[in-house]
Formats: sequence, C-alpha cells, structure tokens
Amino acid sequence: MKTRVTIKTHFSSAHRLYRPDWTEARNLEVFGACANPNGHGHNYGLEVTVEGPIDPETGMVVDMKDLKSLVNDLIVSAVDHKHLNLDVPFLASVIPTAENIAVAFWEILEPRIPTGRLHEVRLQETERNIAVVSR
Amino acid sequence: MKTRVTIKTHFSSAHRLYRPDWTEARNLEVFGACANPNGHGHNYGLEVTVEGPIDPETGMVVDMKDLKSLVNDLIVSAVDHKHLNLDVPFLASVIPTAENIAVAFWEILEPRIPTGRLHEVRLQETERNIAVVSR
Amino acid sequence: MKTRVTIKTHFSSAHRLYRPDWTEARNLEVFGACANPNGHGHNYGLEVTVEGPIDPETGMVVDMKDLKSLVNDLIVSAVDHKHLNLDVPFLASVIPTAENIAVAFWEILEPRIPTGRLHEVRLQETERNIAVVSR
Amino acid sequence: MKTRVTIKTHFSSAHRLYRPDWTEARNLEVFGACANPNGHGHNYGLEVTVEGPIDPETGMVVDMKDLKSLVNDLIVSAVDHKHLNLDVPFLASVIPTAENIAVAFWEILEPRIPTGRLHEVRLQETERNIAVVSR
Amino acid sequence: MKTRVTIKTHFSSAHRLYRPDWTEARNLEVFGACANPNGHGHNYGLEVTVEGPIDPETGMVVDMKDLKSLVNDLIVSAVDHKHLNLDVPFLASVIPTAENIAVAFWEILEPRIPTGRLHEVRLQETERNIAVVSR
Amino acid sequence: MKTRVTIKTHFSSAHRLYRPDWTEARNLEVFGACANPNGHGHNYGLEVTVEGPIDPETGMVVDMKDLKSLVNDLIVSAVDHKHLNLDVPFLASVIPTAENIAVAFWEILEPRIPTGRLHEVRLQETERNIAVVSR
Repeated sequence: MKTRVTIKTHFSSAHRLYRPDWTEARNLEVFGACANPNGHGHNYGLEVTVEGPIDPETGMVVDMKDLKSLVNDLIVSAVDHKHLNLDVPFLASVIPTAENIAVAFWEILEPRIPTGRLHEVRLQETERNIAVVSR
Repeated sequence: MKTRVTIKTHFSSAHRLYRPDWTEARNLEVFGACANPNGHGHNYGLEVTVEGPIDPETGMVVDMKDLKSLVNDLIVSAVDHKHLNLDVPFLASVIPTAENIAVAFWEILEPRIPTGRLHEVRLQETERNIAVVSR
Repeated sequence: MKTRVTIKTHFSSAHRLYRPDWTEARNLEVFGACANPNGHGHNYGLEVTVEGPIDPETGMVVDMKDLKSLVNDLIVSAVDHKHLNLDVPFLASVIPTAENIAVAFWEILEPRIPTGRLHEVRLQETERNIAVVSR
Repeated sequence: MKTRVTIKTHFSSAHRLYRPDWTEARNLEVFGACANPNGHGHNYGLEVTVEGPIDPETGMVVDMKDLKSLVNDLIVSAVDHKHLNLDVPFLASVIPTAENIAVAFWEILEPRIPTGRLHEVRLQETERNIAVVSR
Repeated sequence: MKTRVTIKTHFSSAHRLYRPDWTEARNLEVFGACANPNGHGHNYGLEVTVEGPIDPETGMVVDMKDLKSLVNDLIVSAVDHKHLNLDVPFLASVIPTAENIAVAFWEILEPRIPTGRLHEVRLQETERNIAVVSR
Repeated sequence: MKTRVTIKTHFSSAHRLYRPDWTEARNLEVFGACANPNGHGHNYGLEVTVEGPIDPETGMVVDMKDLKSLVNDLIVSAVDHKHLNLDVPFLASVIPTAENIAVAFWEILEPRIPTGRLHEVRLQETERNIAVVSR
C-alpha cells in the first residue's frame, strides 16, 4: 500500500515556443500560434505529489504546509507574473513547453523534498493540456 | 523518470445499457435507469495520455495539437451528437458502459499514436463516474 | 439588500432538436448535429434560486433540504435518465432547447416554492452552453 | 420573466499593466507584479450572455452556434495566443485590465448580436479574479 | 452599462445549526444532520463583487489586490480554521446558516469598500448550496 | 491493459489536528491553525477506484451503483455531518489527517469490494490538499 499527498498551486506567466535556429516557417509549422512573436500566456496549475510512509506521530507523509512553502519559494516565486523565456534562469536553455517546464520543476524539487520522495509533478497549461513527470 | 502529456476533450451522446437476450426485469435489476427504453445521455469528458521521451529539438512528448486532431478525427467525430448504441459501428457489438467505450477508444487510438505510446484513456461519464484504461 | 439561496443538482438525459414540419435540410441548417435522427444527450446542471427575507428564527430564506426535495420530486425524477422528447409529458409540446426546458421548469416550480419566491432557473447543457430564466 | 443564454469560451494571452507616463515606482505600487517588464499571461475565460424572447419556432433566444462563431470571429481570433498590449488594435489605447478588456469586448459585440440584445460580458482572468460588464 | 469586479477566496470552518431554545426533536426536524451535537464543517467559497465606474487612469473599478487584502483582513482571518458558532464574535448572535453568514459579511464589508460600492456577497457552502446577498 | 472505474462522492465534517500528549506550542508548531481548539471543517471529496477485468456479460468492472451504495453505507454515513475526532469510532485512535483518514477508508473498503479489487482511495481535503492510498 502506497501513501501520497498532493498540493496544488498556480501561477500566471507569459511564454513563447520558438527556436531561433529554425526559419519562421518551420517555427510556425511545429509550434503554430504558440510561436507568435510577442508571446502569449497561461494560468498554469501545478500539482506536486510526494510519496512515503505516514509518520505515526504526526499522521503525515510530509507536512503539506511545508511542501507548499517549498514549492512557493523554489518555483512559484521564480515564475509567477514572469515571462518564462526571458525572466527565469532555470528555463533559459529550454523551449518552455509544458513538458520541459515540468521536468525543470522536478529537477529543482526532487533533491529538496524534506520527507518522503517526489513522486509526480503535474503541470496543467490550459484546461485541455497537461504534462506530467513521475517516477 | 517518466514523461507524459494529456489532452482533454468532450462529446455529447445518447446511450442505453440493455441486453436483448435478458428479460426486462433482469435488465432493470443490473442496469437500473440506464436500461430505460428511450435511452438517456451524457456530456462525456475524454482524456488521452501519451508517454514517451521528450524530443530535445521540440520539447514535446508528442505534438498536442496533432494528438487533439487525431482524437477528434478518430473518436469525437464518430461519437459526438450521436447515439452510441445505434450510430457508432465500433461500439455496435458491445454494451456501451463507460468501461467498454474506453476500451474501444484505446483499441482505435493505440496503433495510431504518432510519437510515444498510448498510456491511458480516461472517460468521465458524469461528474461522479469514471472509467480508465491504462497500461 | 436582497437575500437568495441557490441549490444545484443535475440529471442525464437524451434529446433531439427537430421540427417534423420542416425538411431535413432546414432542420440540419438550424439545429446542426442536434438534429441527428437518433438523438444525443447531456449531463444537465440545474440551479434553482429562491429570493426572500431570511426567517429570523431559522436563519433561512427557504429550507434548502426542502427545496432540493421539491426540485427532485417535480423535475429530476421526471427527466433523469429519460429521453426529453419522448418520455416527459411537460416537454412534449416544445422543442427541448435549453431555453425551453428552463422555461418549463420555471412554470412547474414557480407556484410550488414554499417560502420566498422563485428568482432564477439556470440550466447548463454543456460546459459551454447555459440558459437562464429569471425575474 | 426574462430569458437569456450564455456561451463560454476561452483564450490564452500575455499582457502587462503599465503606464509609460508613470514612474517605475508608481507602476509597481499600483499594478504590483502585473507591471513586470516582460509581461505575464492568463487563460482567460469569456462568457457572453444574450437576453431576449424565445423564438417560438426554433425554441432559441439566439442560435448559440452562431453566437459562438461571432465571438470567435470578432474576439477570440483577435486575442488568442497574442500579447494584449502589442498585438490587438482595439486594446491599444487602454491598460489591459480585466475591466477594460471586458468593456472593449462589449463595445465590439453589442452592435453585432443577431437576435436579442447583449446582456453581459464576463471575463475571468484567473480562478480568483473576474470582471463583468452588464446592462 | 454597469461594470463590476469579483474576487474569490475560501476558508474552512466548523459550524452547527442549532437553537438552544428548541427541543432536540425540533432542531433535528428543521436542521437535520446540521444539528448534530459535535458540529461538522465546510470549505466555504466566498465571492465579493464591487460595482462602480472604471477609473480611467488605472483601468480599475477597485484594485483587486486591495479588495483581496480587505476581505482577508476583515473576514477570512476571523473565520478560517475556526468554529463559526464558538470563535467568531460577529456571528455569535445568529444561527450560522449560509444566509446569515453572508449577511454578516456584507455588513462588515459594505462600509469599508475603498472605491465603488459593494454589489454582492456570494457564499458557497458546498458544491450544491449557495447563499447570496446583493443590492 | 488495465481497466478501472472510479466513483466520486463527498461529505462535510469537522476535525482538529492535535495530540494531547504534546504541549500547545508543539501542536501549534506542527499543525498550525489545524490545532485550533474548537476545530474547523471541510467538504471532503472522496474517489474510490476499483481495478479488474470487464465482465463480458455486463460490460462492467464493478457495478458503479453498487460501489456507490457500499461507500455510502460503510463510509459516508459514518462521517458526513460528523466531527471526525469525536463521532467516528474507526478514526478514534488516529490523528485525522487526510492521510490517516484515507488509510482508514482503505482498510474498511478493501475487504468488501464485490468484484475486482480496490486500487485507490483519493481524499481531497481542500481544493489544494489531497491524500491518496493506492496499491
């Protein structure tokens, strides 16, 4: 039997999907309207799941208040009300697709989970698009 | 570390749960109001999840625009605003429970996923009923 | 200052938008896929709002438990898991658009509200289509 | 008794709240993180409500398919996957707060409603912020 | 043309619907399970709507950040993670039905709205029960 | 290929996170506002997932109507409109964190699933906090 907890948060950012080493036509073909020159944006929903045993003294897998603070300090404060291509050092070298953003979040969070271990990062870009990184 | 993307869509259909080889009483006992003779209907929510590595050039597991088009062409166009028992050839031989519909969708989509592989088909029949087919 | 309470419920039904006195082509032009011959269906969301003073003894505009029972007895039991064109006497003479269904519900509920008065009937046909009848 | 219909749609855009005639400090004081230089973005939810009598022949206040097409053609195609400050002529002269965007949409839509009349434009900027323009 | 903004927040509280001047039987008859002796609780959703002209300089009816802070300071901090019957002075003299709570919030907020005027307080007690106070 | 069904339900309860063998200061440090003396409460969302083969005769993994009745009889009737610390025998010996509640539900449900086997119990405490027990 596995036990997990998930906290949900959100942030609002601009981004653009674009490769400078490609022609405009190729960018448009692959990324569609996501390649528009001035960028667009989303309200991203972020869920972080930690798996581990329940501490018999506290009844917790991990303190969800602490987990929220951690996600806020390491992730949300860096991306909320920012432009993901221009303002976020840890995303500077990747195309900010939902998949790549989720991987970047995983890599930042994974070594910092205080108890239990990171199980999943789920990033909802729109009501209809989701990327997940998990074990 | 696994990476996945999910697209969500929806369709509105009528259906009826009923076996002609059973008595009315037996149909009513097993299927309840779902066996009512003139059928009823739902706004179905459909989530399709593909798992695979992220293409380092595009940042994508699979192009979500392409995945949406595929699901629309192969599934939604066949079932939306239709009667699932009467109008959908690939459901003609099964009782259209959420489980059976999800399996039928899996079988159609699985060989057609362009990159990565199909991981899960999740069909929400009502706010309170869901069927999932997954690896 | 006005005070109101709203209860929400839902039901799942089949329907078809179609006028037998029109040609197939005219039906298709006006009603689109909603005119498909075997019908389709929805999970309808229904909100009923009552306005009135708060009873100082109970703290209630109307007893929401009673209001739910009333809506269930008069409306939901008549339409849930039914075909709105074929199975519902009070809809037999109208085309079951969201607008017409909401009006029919209003007419049934309005004289039966136990305290306060009916303020609004809101019928959500899909996540993207709503009809409202109100004072 | 009033009858209304509402259609819902959505779009994803970048924006920035900023007055060039103000100091940076004043912009930051009034607009907070919304003034960040490279902009941010949202998944906007848009609801458009039309009020009017129900056409007894069609059972409709306004054809919701037509209303969706109108909103898509006049509004969504102009703002989706765009930067609201830079790419949208009808927003060029205003600060793109939710209030101002909703007013601009109202002014575009109001003279174009085919039957009935525009009753409300509701723009949801985040799960927690909404602007409404109504009669 | 009216312009309004709405902010949404939430809080989690315990309460009990019970009149000490009534018999147990009468309490149970009127309030049902809500009268259970040890109380129960809800995640309440709270929406506060302000109506007024848009300030042409800022593009705002009211600064939504300020409105959120006000609602947090005056309301949420007083009721969140509290027992509404026992811990909240401004609710001490009423039965904490959704209607009475919404009225109490209105009376606290109405004189404190910085620009525009309070238009509506909407309190969602469960997914299926809502109380509204409005002009 | 795995097949699963999920039913969703909900209940409204009060609780308090508190250890009598700890000082007030320690309780406050670990449990924060959740340790407030008079308790608080939530609308809990509960999802129960059963995995198993689809019965070829009925098209069902498990009869979802039966599964709902089971969850209602064994769980919801015991916790809805109750105080989880004071009124629920099967929670009397644990701190009612979301994790511990989910485990208790798993232990009650697991031996009683009529067909297939219990796969997951998901308990949503607030829009932003979830606990999951799964195989």
